[in-house]
Amino acid sequence: MLRSIMLRPPDYSYGDSQPIVAIATALSESALAIVRTSGKGAIELAAGVFSCPMELKAAAGNTLTHGWIVDEKGALVDEVLAAVFRPPNGFTGEDAVEFTCHGGIAVVRAVLRVLIQAGFRQALPGEFSFRSFMNGKLDLTRAESIMELVASKTDEARSRAVERLSGVLEREIVAVKAMLVDALSSTELLLDYSEDDGIPDAPDGQFPEREAIVEAQSLLAELAASYRLERLFREGATVAVAGRPNAGKSSLFNRLVREERSIVSETPGTTRDWIEAWVSIHGIPVRLVDTAGLREAPETVERQGVERSKAILKDADLTIYLVDGAIGENAEDAELVASLKPETTIRVWNKVDIADIAPQGYHAASAVTGQGIHELGEKISDILESLGGRPGSTRDSGTGSPGGSMRVGIASARQKDLVDRALAAVTEALRRADDGLPLDLVAPEMREAVDALGEITGEVTSEQILHNMFGRFCVGK
Amino acid sequence: MLRSIMLRPPDYSYGDSQPIVAIATALSESALAIVRTSGKGAIELAAGVFSCPMELKAAAGNTLTHGWIVDEKGALVDEVLAAVFRPPNGFTGEDAVEFTCHGGIAVVRAVLRVLIQAGFRQALPGEFSFRSFMNGKLDLTRAESIMELVASKTDEARSRAVERLSGVLEREIVAVKAMLVDALSSTELLLDYSEDDGIPDAPDGQFPEREAIVEAQSLLAELAASYRLERLFREGATVAVAGRPNAGKSSLFNRLVREERSIVSETPGTTRDWIEAWVSIHGIPVRLVDTAGLREAPETVERQGVERSKAILKDADLTIYLVDGAIGENAEDAELVASLKPETTIRVWNKVDIADIAPQGYHAASAVTGQGIHELGEKISDILESLGGRPGSTRDSGTGSPGGSMRVGIASARQKDLVDRALAAVTEALRRADDGLPLDLVAPEMREAVDALGEITGEVTSEQILHNMFGRFCVGK
Repeated sequence: MLRSIMLRPPDYSYGDSQPIVAIATALSESALAIVRTSGKGAIELAAGVFSCPMELKAAAGNTLTHGWIVDEKGALVDEVLAAVFRPPNGFTGEDAVEFTCHGGIAVVRAVLRVLIQAGFRQALPGEFSFRSFMNGKLDLTRAESIMELVASKTDEARSRAVERLSGVLEREIVAVKAMLVDALSSTELLLDYSEDDGIPDAPDGQFPEREAIVEAQSLLAELAASYRLERLFREGATVAVAGRPNAGKSSLFNRLVREERSIVSETPGTTRDWIEAWVSIHGIPVRLVDTAGLREAPETVERQGVERSKAILKDADLTIYLVDGAIGENAEDAELVASLKPETTIRVWNKVDIADIAPQGYHAASAVTGQGIHELGEKISDILESLGGRPGSTRDSGTGSPGGSMRVGIASARQKDLVDRALAAVTEALRRADDGLPLDLVAPEMREAVDALGEITGEVTSEQILHNMFGRFCVGK
Repeated sequence: MLRSIMLRPPDYSYGDSQPIVAIATALSESALAIVRTSGKGAIELAAGVFSCPMELKAAAGNTLTHGWIVDEKGALVDEVLAAVFRPPNGFTGEDAVEFTCHGGIAVVRAVLRVLIQAGFRQALPGEFSFRSFMNGKLDLTRAESIMELVASKTDEARSRAVERLSGVLEREIVAVKAMLVDALSSTELLLDYSEDDGIPDAPDGQFPEREAIVEAQSLLAELAASYRLERLFREGATVAVAGRPNAGKSSLFNRLVREERSIVSETPGTTRDWIEAWVSIHGIPVRLVDTAGLREAPETVERQGVERSKAILKDADLTIYLVDGAIGENAEDAELVASLKPETTIRVWNKVDIADIAPQGYHAASAVTGQGIHELGEKISDILESLGGRPGSTRDSGTGSPGGSMRVGIASARQKDLVDRALAAVTEALRRADDGLPLDLVAPEMREAVDALGEITGEVTSEQILHNMFGRFCVGK
């Protein structure tokens, strides 16, 4: 399916089919890198800087040709493999050449420069994906999942994104829409043939398409509800570790970072800030914040520290409140705990290895021996998932891996807005039908829902939406 | 040509043909990434985690197959393109599959994990290049140029490395060696047929192979001399900016960083330290150090600063000594300049826009207006290149680009040692011949030179040398 929307606002060139080029891999010393091109005449243009131009021009789609990039003076730039793609295959569905070159910064830049000199223009962010969408190779839910996939912080987040990339969400939206389109067609047929003002008689006196609409409503409600959990896996949650001085906050923080899987990108220069760390707790990206560094600062900044600490607790999705079990709870603890929401606070009786048994309402743990730490991780993920709308925990206590029958939901604010619009419209359609209003007042609501669903996949869409979406992609994607 | 050296020291598995896997691109959020495999059965093994296993197994070499990586539970891991290579083609010359997947950290790690679970073992550093060498696809000079290429800091450095990758150096070594092998054969023939103790008579009374040996000596001397310049482009040089307080050191430093091409990797988290910066001055990677930050430190650390400053000047390949032209030279300047080597010091008369004309021996410049800065860059590169052994400057003053007829030399300490060994041997052979010593005392020296040259390309080599070389490669290369 070729999309027909042409976009030519002044500050964008999205929408033409000019040959474009971009570095598609991270620019850092590595074994290999990819410089990709796409567009009308891309293969001929690439052949102009390739050591075996005739071979490249004659190459069949989905084949690799070995050769060298050569600059305008005939000097060798790098030894490469050129992957040739021909329509309708390849990611964009256009003529395309992807060069796998050596992964040096100077090399990758030189290859890019030579291709730009040869006539390619530097691609805009997301322009390859945009072309893929325009050429009907991807719907918008799959296009959105690409950047989601790239940005996934945990394996669970990756797994959810890849399901959407495979078209799971697209198929679900298309199915609900088809159901509504059927119902709408039948309703419009009834409208054409009936001059009645009221709902025509059905065997049970009801609006004949009621059942379909109810089912669509239920599916849409489920989709709308799925957003919070998907967002949790995509964006993560903030968990703060609080408590009085010497309750063992930093020890617990360090223990959690060590026990749970730390999310550290291996990018050079990434610093590890020990007041804050990203960890994967049962697949949820958790930003763990130790308020110790803030509260126990030198005297001069103590005031400021306490305020920042309060701000963190206010923003946190969940607070782990630590009491030194060897000392016990005191008035200050009681006051601090009272200021926290009970449903998003886990009270931990720390130092249980040397302390009395934990009283009711406390989770017993020892940052020193590791006792109770695994269970604390489970409690954290249970609460975060229930905040995300997952009904109860489905986890085997033995393993942390998600079940195989994962239900994937909607992942972007754009999708959520449109599902909400569709849901509101079918709900209103149902209300009007149930109130006995005439069919020509019911049908427009059904159409509204159909349109909203069409926008999710991109069957109907606006320039602005496409710009907003693809403009947020990285260059080379 | 298949190499016959088998390496099985206890701490290495280099030398087997097990299927190996490695991430070949930088691990950072990006559009695409490559996870490469190679080895016996690599295609079958990869097919086991690929959505279209039959297609992959049947794929011809140098073709791309679209599909999905699927984990052991059947869950989708990522959408990929699988490039299949079959012997004798491909980089390693083995069965190989390179997966181009999405460039997310979680994605790349998941693909790697699934392939390891499927039976691939994680590749050792440089193991792909090692196999390429063992399978006769690369000689050692070309193998060494790969890591050189990846690490190139400037385009000139890249250009030199890529020439070596194309086999320029290999061909030169092979040619010199062939010349010596010929001369050696003729000499040995003479030895066999003659029972004379002295040099057999030639028309001019000389050793008959003298001419060939002299030519080899001259070529080897040229190669040995090329090392310094190659090292300059590969490793760069340190240029320190010195002078009394307020001479304008930081302004000049900043101006040079701005005018010359700054070498900044675009890796996130790369910080720009304004006391030190890498710039490309006519293709030479220059580490520019501003001693201002050191000398003009707060009082308490002043002493320490002065000492660090002296240490920098001692280690610098070149010093730019700045005098405030508006004030002029004083006794302190004279004393400081006297401590510097004149041949590696450029004296700059700064603030020439508001000062008197620069006296003899000073380069006039203004960090503020930029006057004389371009010429200063040329002086820097001229001195560094002459230190590197380039005779005079061959540059057009208008452009900074190197000429097309670049002469490429030797690039590694290993190559240098072996060229030196060969050169010493031919020199000794010549001396013995000229001294009229018997041929059976000349021939061993010629053989020694032939052997050393054979080691450069890897025709003859030892386990230890291969380990040292490939062990320094990055993983995935």
